[in-house]
Amino acid sequence: MLTLDKIYHASYVLKDVIRPTHIVRASKISSECEVYLKPENLQNTGSFKVRGSGYKISQLSDEEKAKGVIACSAGNHAQGVALAATKYGIKSIICLPDGAPISKVEATKNYGADVCMVKGVYDDAYAEALRQRDEHNYTFIHPFDDENVIAGQGTIGIEILDEMPDVDAVVCAIGGGGLISGVACAIKNLNPNIKVYGVQAEGAPSMYESVKKGEAVHLDNVSTIADGIQVKEPGEHTFELVKKYVDEIVTVTDDEISSAILQLIESQKMIAEGAGAAPVAAVMFNKLPLKGKKVVCVVSGGNIDVTILSRVIKRGLLMTGRQQTICVELQDKPGQLLAVSKIIAERGGNVISVHHERASEGSDVTGCYLRIVLETRDFNHVKEITDALIGAGFKLI
Amino acid sequence: MLTLDKIYHASYVLKDVIRPTHIVRASKISSECEVYLKPENLQNTGSFKVRGSGYKISQLSDEEKAKGVIACSAGNHAQGVALAATKYGIKSIICLPDGAPISKVEATKNYGADVCMVKGVYDDAYAEALRQRDEHNYTFIHPFDDENVIAGQGTIGIEILDEMPDVDAVVCAIGGGGLISGVACAIKNLNPNIKVYGVQAEGAPSMYESVKKGEAVHLDNVSTIADGIQVKEPGEHTFELVKKYVDEIVTVTDDEISSAILQLIESQKMIAEGAGAAPVAAVMFNKLPLKGKKVVCVVSGGNIDVTILSRVIKRGLLMTGRQQTICVELQDKPGQLLAVSKIIAERGGNVISVHHERASEGSDVTGCYLRIVLETRDFNHVKEITDALIGAGFKLI
Repeated sequence: MLTLDKIYHASYVLKDVIRPTHIVRASKISSECEVYLKPENLQNTGSFKVRGSGYKISQLSDEEKAKGVIACSAGNHAQGVALAATKYGIKSIICLPDGAPISKVEATKNYGADVCMVKGVYDDAYAEALRQRDEHNYTFIHPFDDENVIAGQGTIGIEILDEMPDVDAVVCAIGGGGLISGVACAIKNLNPNIKVYGVQAEGAPSMYESVKKGEAVHLDNVSTIADGIQVKEPGEHTFELVKKYVDEIVTVTDDEISSAILQLIESQKMIAEGAGAAPVAAVMFNKLPLKGKKVVCVVSGGNIDVTILSRVIKRGLLMTGRQQTICVELQDKPGQLLAVSKIIAERGGNVISVHHERASEGSDVTGCYLRIVLETRDFNHVKEITDALIGAGFKLI
Repeated sequence: MLTLDKIYHASYVLKDVIRPTHIVRASKISSECEVYLKPENLQNTGSFKVRGSGYKISQLSDEEKAKGVIACSAGNHAQGVALAATKYGIKSIICLPDGAPISKVEATKNYGADVCMVKGVYDDAYAEALRQRDEHNYTFIHPFDDENVIAGQGTIGIEILDEMPDVDAVVCAIGGGGLISGVACAIKNLNPNIKVYGVQAEGAPSMYESVKKGEAVHLDNVSTIADGIQVKEPGEHTFELVKKYVDEIVTVTDDEISSAILQLIESQKMIAEGAGAAPVAAVMFNKLPLKGKKVVCVVSGGNIDVTILSRVIKRGLLMTGRQQTICVELQDKPGQLLAVSKIIAERGGNVISVHHERASEGSDVTGCYLRIVLETRDFNHVKEITDALIGAGFKLI
């Protein structure tokens, strides 16, 4: 089983592959506890994954290195393997399902991998990767269920204790469990009093369910905005390590994750992907017993597609009452738009857009609708405005 | 005139007010030179401004401190003054024009200032601030044209040389000129061989024009996405310092700034506001003689409204050929949509949205339009797809 000395060895070996990511204070995440971030979104490739693949590849035999490595991923693992292989001067092949986002395919190529697009979904790409491994004797680099990969991720635990020896709790996202297994192993072996908490997406709670049941659970359908932790079942090694070392696992919703991404943008000026923001979401929404504690959230990655980012920002604004769409039914007579505008302006609402539509289905023929998108302070502010409109005799739909 | 020892004194005094912002490598900004960022967007309040106001306030007499300070700003200066005043335990009043974004008003309040909303635009708020200063004997904290404010901003120059003594060039945005005056003064007094370049928005080139003319120019109309540097005329002190120390000033467009913001999000996982991204834009679009040089861009702030951020992301995608809207005229007969979809799919274009509209004005009555938003790799990819559509007989509008 994984030991601390292997993680220390990985720390030493990885000096050439990774860049330092210093812990930063994040005072606006919670008023209940003292929150810090370990910003692995600022790591090379934009994610912690390069640690695990980097250590794994460094430990291959010369013969294995000469043949090259293969992996299957549409995300951070692909980029981690590609960069690490390139650093060590060896060949890498990444199998990707053909629906993978163009930005991720390009990034993987740019780090030096040969990209192999496979028709179908992840499982098809995975099967193709194993086929090529067998045909060409490549070494397959598993994204999480490999002791050397886990040791590489564990170096984050050592760095946290180096920089903040008096931390009370560390919070990590869990997909397959590679990150938290390594981090928890490092931390608990150095100081078993420090809590290690795991966070999964509510739409992909495979480790959460497995630990609850006491046996590895396979989920057929997983779906979350946090694609980095959208994993159907835990690994064998990782399940054992999580059972042994992790204090508690909680889940967060996609809406909570969106709010956390927005919070990180606004208060930390930092981009996190869904998986990276999940620990922050767990702390923001008080899912863990952290009152008065000094907490480090591992922000595991920042590779979020920018088109998704736009949608997340919008969702986060809605979730926190910062943007609101209201729909007012009007009599079709002059002065109505003016009256509504006045009520909103007097209460400090900022109109972002207005659609004025006549006689759509459901309204009576002489009436019309006003659909207004408002910028507001919070939900109280929204209520203040809608109450005033209702008080003035307008009907909200 | 400003001296190096004052800037060193500011460095010493500010230790309690600011947080360290370590220089980071940004390898994807340019293939021509070695680019680093000084990330002042990660500074307290999300901008460098707290340095200048912090030092200014620290140097007030006890009598002045007892009375309090007043400032006028809808942006970073407001937050900087508010936080610095709160740190030194003194009262601050910030006058804001009543159109200021809710998020900025809330942030200023949260840092402990009394916010005074003034009907009208910036100039009205400014007049009100001076009125209240005279009435209550507050000290007015100018956003840039004050020697102590400039000395505070200059601490960034010292930090850059501390961390990277072999830098060849430093690039700063210019609004009123406070930041670059301090930074250039620090750097040129320590090593006159290091170049200091300024960047202005094309829509607000007051310092650029002033230096060209040899006298301070007042611009009546300024407009740029980079609201932090949307300034109508240079300060007296700053104009003198820029003339003395700055090697060259260039301008960048809003589209170039948008591309730079997007680049910082994708490759650095970092949020910059328009002013903060302007130096990066200047480097990305080769506006400066930097070939083979080691360059630090000062990313001065990250306080960008998230709704504007969404728009900037979209604009940045368009600007770099990563997203494209194409409009195809179709005969209104079966199979046309299929044919178009097939051509796009075969060339790896990713369809984000489709609008199918019949007989809008300008098309003949039997025809219809297909408006498709595509995710693409770059402009070559866009051309490949549009060429294929034209080759297959479709008419693009």
